[in-house]
Amino acid sequence: MGINIPNFLSSKSKNRKMNDFQDLDHLDGLSISSVSANLYKTNRDDLVMFYFRDGANFASVYTQSKIISENIKWNLDQKTKKIFSLMINTRNANSFTGEQGYRSMQNIADIISHQLTNKQKIDEENPKKIKSKNILFGCTGTIGETFPYQKISSKIPDLIENIKYTQNKLIWMKAALGIMTTDTKPKMAMEECSIGNTPVKIYGIAKGSGMIHPNMATTLGYIFTDAEIPNDILKKLLKKNIENTFNAISCDGDTSTNDMVAIFSTGKAYHSKINNINDKKLKNFDHSLNKVLLNLAKRIVADGEGATKLLTIKVNEAKTDIEAKKIAFSIANSPLVKTAITGEDPNWGRVIMAIGKSDAQININKLVLKFGNILVVSNGKLHNSYDEKETANYMKNSDIEINVSIGSGNKNFTAYTMDLTKKYIEINADYRS
Amino acid sequence: MGINIPNFLSSKSKNRKMNDFQDLDHLDGLSISSVSANLYKTNRDDLVMFYFRDGANFASVYTQSKIISENIKWNLDQKTKKIFSLMINTRNANSFTGEQGYRSMQNIADIISHQLTNKQKIDEENPKKIKSKNILFGCTGTIGETFPYQKISSKIPDLIENIKYTQNKLIWMKAALGIMTTDTKPKMAMEECSIGNTPVKIYGIAKGSGMIHPNMATTLGYIFTDAEIPNDILKKLLKKNIENTFNAISCDGDTSTNDMVAIFSTGKAYHSKINNINDKKLKNFDHSLNKVLLNLAKRIVADGEGATKLLTIKVNEAKTDIEAKKIAFSIANSPLVKTAITGEDPNWGRVIMAIGKSDAQININKLVLKFGNILVVSNGKLHNSYDEKETANYMKNSDIEINVSIGSGNKNFTAYTMDLTKKYIEINADYRS
Repeated sequence: MGINIPNFLSSKSKNRKMNDFQDLDHLDGLSISSVSANLYKTNRDDLVMFYFRDGANFASVYTQSKIISENIKWNLDQKTKKIFSLMINTRNANSFTGEQGYRSMQNIADIISHQLTNKQKIDEENPKKIKSKNILFGCTGTIGETFPYQKISSKIPDLIENIKYTQNKLIWMKAALGIMTTDTKPKMAMEECSIGNTPVKIYGIAKGSGMIHPNMATTLGYIFTDAEIPNDILKKLLKKNIENTFNAISCDGDTSTNDMVAIFSTGKAYHSKINNINDKKLKNFDHSLNKVLLNLAKRIVADGEGATKLLTIKVNEAKTDIEAKKIAFSIANSPLVKTAITGEDPNWGRVIMAIGKSDAQININKLVLKFGNILVVSNGKLHNSYDEKETANYMKNSDIEINVSIGSGNKNFTAYTMDLTKKYIEINADYRS
Repeated sequence: MGINIPNFLSSKSKNRKMNDFQDLDHLDGLSISSVSANLYKTNRDDLVMFYFRDGANFASVYTQSKIISENIKWNLDQKTKKIFSLMINTRNANSFTGEQGYRSMQNIADIISHQLTNKQKIDEENPKKIKSKNILFGCTGTIGETFPYQKISSKIPDLIENIKYTQNKLIWMKAALGIMTTDTKPKMAMEECSIGNTPVKIYGIAKGSGMIHPNMATTLGYIFTDAEIPNDILKKLLKKNIENTFNAISCDGDTSTNDMVAIFSTGKAYHSKINNINDKKLKNFDHSLNKVLLNLAKRIVADGEGATKLLTIKVNEAKTDIEAKKIAFSIANSPLVKTAITGEDPNWGRVIMAIGKSDAQININKLVLKFGNILVVSNGKLHNSYDEKETANYMKNSDIEINVSIGSGNKNFTAYTMDLTKKYIEINADYRS
């Protein structure tokens, strides 16, 4: 295949519980293709297409930023029940590109739908007419640069030519690599579950790794399943499961204009029919979808720009859900907490500071703070048994857990972030390249 | 005097409009003293006392964090009309130190009031009895470490011994140096104005330089005037003028548990009486107080941890004050904007991103974005005349201005911040020392 697979299994990430070897395989009803449109100076793949030869049910969640990119506008404008293709480009966000950006989406959708319709005529027994509205786009990269319409549109024939009807792990990895920007690792996750007695696959890919702070959906995440689930139920499942996964991560507190997480259902698993979100047959699927989303979300954070450590912040016993989330993100987004993690310094005072500034009501006598299992603060003071050396030793791990109990209720929230390093500055202070 | 004056006039800061040579002189009714209590490994001054031999009117604003330090609790508990002394220590924040921290304040206040009362008996014609409640404290440093009561209390006699009744520029600088933590420059500002025909002085010192994000007052700032202004009017003046000065700055979006800005009025200028906040005679004073506070606030940001550039963000034509402030701080606290500034990259797309995520309603066709005087975005797109080279050249300045017009109203807010550099990470990822 000639894929350059980056050496993404550092010794540190090897210790992670997440299984980095994800054996994504063929998922019926879905084809994948990727090429280079020379959007970067290297000839890396930067254009990826997902093709559903029989169409797919779908649901999407998008950025909550008040300024949204032209591809997201396009996606929101399409009123359709089936998606036939999702195309993703990197390097250019197609954001703040105005009419030129939107028209590019329109024209490219026209080209893709036309060429896929022709492909249907050749390949399918019952060829379908694919329309522009059946095409969705994901764009990621620099905001405000003219959308490279020529470069991309001229590569559509290659992209379609490249479509193979059978997928394997390498093809998935090539797709995951093709949507990367400053990511250092491709991000894939999978679960196999069942609906009734029918085995069902849930596969997903995602990308980070800057401008990551949850607000509905964050960054790009695409989930594919061979289950057959109606659009309205897909939407409910996605919205519900995004909350404690993609909406629970933050790399830098910044929110992209391009965030998108979508799920596509090809319906090729032929299980018994799902009629509503409360169908008991969905329970296993629901749970597995959450696992795939969380796995991808954690991979995004663990590979956040410049990250050397994954930080999990569990807030328990808060009065309300909102308060629990507020406190968790106040800690997750604090540069002083994040740099303490970088320095492997159990500087719990900074965690206290972040809890204090979260605006939640705190009774410090009820507050319990742990680093991992190490009790640091309780009853409003440093715990008697607290041993700084032991804690400093714990901070050397690549996965750090901060546990906070507020003691004012029974609401919980877990947020995920990473440390803030010089490498982050290096990546982001570099003049755009 | 043997003061080590750091070389704080870098070639970059020389270009700043703020006058770094502030000739703070004697201010009647105020004495200053500073010593080393060996709180640091070096023998730098870390204990500073301001002494008002005839007492001073005062007003304070404190952190809005829900977790506050023991010295702030002490200050809030004292019900008194006159302050005789303000003592500031560095290195230890006396925060999350519980009873030990609070009792330390009580005991030190007892010692100071006792010894100052004795000093009054020796020095004054009409000696006053100074009480513990007449003493205020400022503490700054690491959160959660046992308060170094012994070290500090044993130095009180030296501190009081050191009091001189006449101040000069070097004594002020010694005080400004003595309250520093990670600051690289002492921060002083002054204005001379008049109330009626009587000349009045407003002098101030402040410190940064991490955990700086406004929420009422930020960091430590102390203002002294020889005007005679009642406590309630001082409070109103301080609250009013803090909004667009100390509450308009952010270094890292973090809020300390110890923030405090206070103003002390010795009443030695003997101007005609001020009865209410609307007194016309106050206009000049009000304006000058704002200048002193803004000067100090900008110095804090310009010397923010790792800062190489001062960033001024002007948001105009917003619908509401809250919206203007929200947008300004969304830009000011964005790590991606701050690192672009570090990289001297006119990456206006990141500013657009930060405006978008601020949650304010934005009509991109009305949005105008300028870097300095360079028009970047208008009518929802990059301006025709935009010249990236010219803008990149502008980014080389040490003072960068981002101007945003929202076009939805007439409310304005200006925020101040600095760039985010590797040095910030270095300072904060260092194990506490």
